[in-house]
Amino acid sequence: MRQSKLFTRTRKESPADEVSKNAELLIRGGFVHKEMAGVYSYLPLGLRVLRKIENIIREEMDKIGGQEVLMSSFQPKDNWEKTGRWSAMDDLYKVSDSSSREIALGPTHEEIVVPILKNYASSHKDFPVAIYQIQNKFRMELRAKSGMLRGREFIMKDMYSFHTSKEDFENFYEKMKGVYKTIFKRVGIGHITYLCFASGGTFSEYSHEFQTVTSAGEDTIYVDEASGSALNKEVLNDEVLNQLNLTKEKLAEHKAIEVGNIFDLKTKYSAPFDLSYTDEKGEKSTVLMGCYGIGLGRLLGTVVEALADDKGIIWPESIAPFAIHLLALGDDEVVLGEANKIYENLLKAGVEVLFDDREEVSAGEKFSDADLLGMPWRAVVSARSLKDNGIELKKRTEEKGKIVSLDELLKLLAPNH
Amino acid sequence: MRQSKLFTRTRKESPADEVSKNAELLIRGGFVHKEMAGVYSYLPLGLRVLRKIENIIREEMDKIGGQEVLMSSFQPKDNWEKTGRWSAMDDLYKVSDSSSREIALGPTHEEIVVPILKNYASSHKDFPVAIYQIQNKFRMELRAKSGMLRGREFIMKDMYSFHTSKEDFENFYEKMKGVYKTIFKRVGIGHITYLCFASGGTFSEYSHEFQTVTSAGEDTIYVDEASGSALNKEVLNDEVLNQLNLTKEKLAEHKAIEVGNIFDLKTKYSAPFDLSYTDEKGEKSTVLMGCYGIGLGRLLGTVVEALADDKGIIWPESIAPFAIHLLALGDDEVVLGEANKIYENLLKAGVEVLFDDREEVSAGEKFSDADLLGMPWRAVVSARSLKDNGIELKKRTEEKGKIVSLDELLKLLAPNH
Repeated sequence: MRQSKLFTRTRKESPADEVSKNAELLIRGGFVHKEMAGVYSYLPLGLRVLRKIENIIREEMDKIGGQEVLMSSFQPKDNWEKTGRWSAMDDLYKVSDSSSREIALGPTHEEIVVPILKNYASSHKDFPVAIYQIQNKFRMELRAKSGMLRGREFIMKDMYSFHTSKEDFENFYEKMKGVYKTIFKRVGIGHITYLCFASGGTFSEYSHEFQTVTSAGEDTIYVDEASGSALNKEVLNDEVLNQLNLTKEKLAEHKAIEVGNIFDLKTKYSAPFDLSYTDEKGEKSTVLMGCYGIGLGRLLGTVVEALADDKGIIWPESIAPFAIHLLALGDDEVVLGEANKIYENLLKAGVEVLFDDREEVSAGEKFSDADLLGMPWRAVVSARSLKDNGIELKKRTEEKGKIVSLDELLKLLAPNH
Repeated sequence: MRQSKLFTRTRKESPADEVSKNAELLIRGGFVHKEMAGVYSYLPLGLRVLRKIENIIREEMDKIGGQEVLMSSFQPKDNWEKTGRWSAMDDLYKVSDSSSREIALGPTHEEIVVPILKNYASSHKDFPVAIYQIQNKFRMELRAKSGMLRGREFIMKDMYSFHTSKEDFENFYEKMKGVYKTIFKRVGIGHITYLCFASGGTFSEYSHEFQTVTSAGEDTIYVDEASGSALNKEVLNDEVLNQLNLTKEKLAEHKAIEVGNIFDLKTKYSAPFDLSYTDEKGEKSTVLMGCYGIGLGRLLGTVVEALADDKGIIWPESIAPFAIHLLALGDDEVVLGEANKIYENLLKAGVEVLFDDREEVSAGEKFSDADLLGMPWRAVVSARSLKDNGIELKKRTEEKGKIVSLDELLKLLAPNH
């Protein structure tokens, strides 16, 4: 894409009302626009990152046999009364219709997915089933001060799995741990993300979270570096330490962001709707459930928090809006012609390229924009680079670049082309 | 996909609370699930159709230079008070926060997109700009009885264009007419969809709608078959007839569904936010706007209404959940083995195939499911087809099939493979 056509611009000043690094950088770069506390719109660059994260998650959910749906945000009050959450859930938004009928604005979808499946599944042969979606959620969040990390409106992948035996559930739950590890690795934070033992909320004693170590984290975790085991501060007690075979003295304390969690729901949501199955003998039992969440905006914000440096964002190649940022410096006709040629060649080879073709913008400004926007590679075409017969190529994470030819650049970025 | 793994099932009975053909067929086929009047969840088959429609629209929006964003559903009350629509818009859902702060639940996004662009654009050089999204909308709809045709929660593509001159706006507006025609043609209803002169609402005298002729339509349009011109009943008067050079006697009356509309917004939404530009002489003027909408769920429902026959849905190839429905009949091991081989070969060739591999399901049931679900092609593998050395291939729209070989089938469905 030509940067001269992009309707967003970078800005130098930090937004006055943001205290979090992720929101500050994302707003300065024009990735998102803040509508109110905890509510952001995705602008073209931010949406490209979101879609890449979405596709990685979708691929991994499909691989494990998940069936994708898209459930509604409007949810009947009846369903929420059945599970007792209409009055019990403090952060539930309620909407009134013109006829004063009340509607829940979905913060999660157990109340929708269970009745849906009940329409179709009743025999043990109909299980196991895993259903997921990537969809908008709403939660009445009081402390929405962490930018993309804690939203009142946010996009989430939620999967629900349904089983006829504890063994089958546990088997799937263990597999999902691996799937989640793969996802966090693919989006570029695998090396700082830990599977973490945590409290389970109201329906089970314990659960598992995935926590990414970064100073902006709201959680405190303890990590045993030798084994890679970790636990949330909230469950740091002798019983849990014994269970996990950990010694308190060997644990390192870190601030961390919860980027995913997986829950054993047991029959908490299947029972109220009588989602059950008949076994081979014709006997009826209630279905067992698990649920598995990842907030996409939070994940995007976490990548920014954890990987950025003092110059700006650093996107991992897998989720960068563009693979490379091509900069044309100066207004020399030869330079501009050469840069255009390189741009067209990269496009033809299927490389995603942001081309800073803006006129009347200084070299210094283009360099600092490239640092702020954080594409993995920066390629500079200037009178100097052409004198050296090439393009000055530099990784965002490295200080020094080197001169390469167009052929070398294409081989690097589109090896299979 | 193996139908035995699909968690949804078809059902024979029509849902008791649906009066519209589109919702009835879509629910019977397991494409959607009704949560409440005007609110539907998309199940795996329905979501596949939705995504294909989405991709067609996205491609066409990108071609005309649209920049995709994803704006929030939660919208600040302030913005809506600025345009006067907080109190003027009857179908606006309002949500209250715990601190009793009120929030608008977006029925449309002028109040969000204009302030966003104002952050970035102020010179005539920053225009024209076209911004679009494919996103959820909420409208307090009183008569939500038409299935997917009229929702209280629905997915919409909305584009907003911004211009510095009337000529530039009109030029873009004319181009969009062509883009819309292309979209409706690509989703398979081009032959029954008319560009229709209509009333303009509060901000301009006239607008243009795209109306698809079908008996379920809530609108009445008049079509001049010779020229292809059409107008909405609401503007059937001598002045308009003169303007369009039409004779009342030559017009044919049809029921139709409005599948898209395009509006000249003038400065209605740019003025309240002072979205303006300075021209070459340094003089300031207010930006001109257009907006362009297509409801994706409504479009999906319209395709069902307009093209279905008495056996079920008929999906055009461009938006069908799968290109072909492969049926294995009987429990003969040879038949099942052969059907599996064909399935694997189709997958390998990149063909989207729904494979009815269900055991204990009669041939009659499989045939009627194939008709209800409406894939463009049906391929049957049975003892009889194997005796004829092949696969019985039939178009959903045709009565009679013919025997083809696997090679012929692959050549037909994956010619470039």
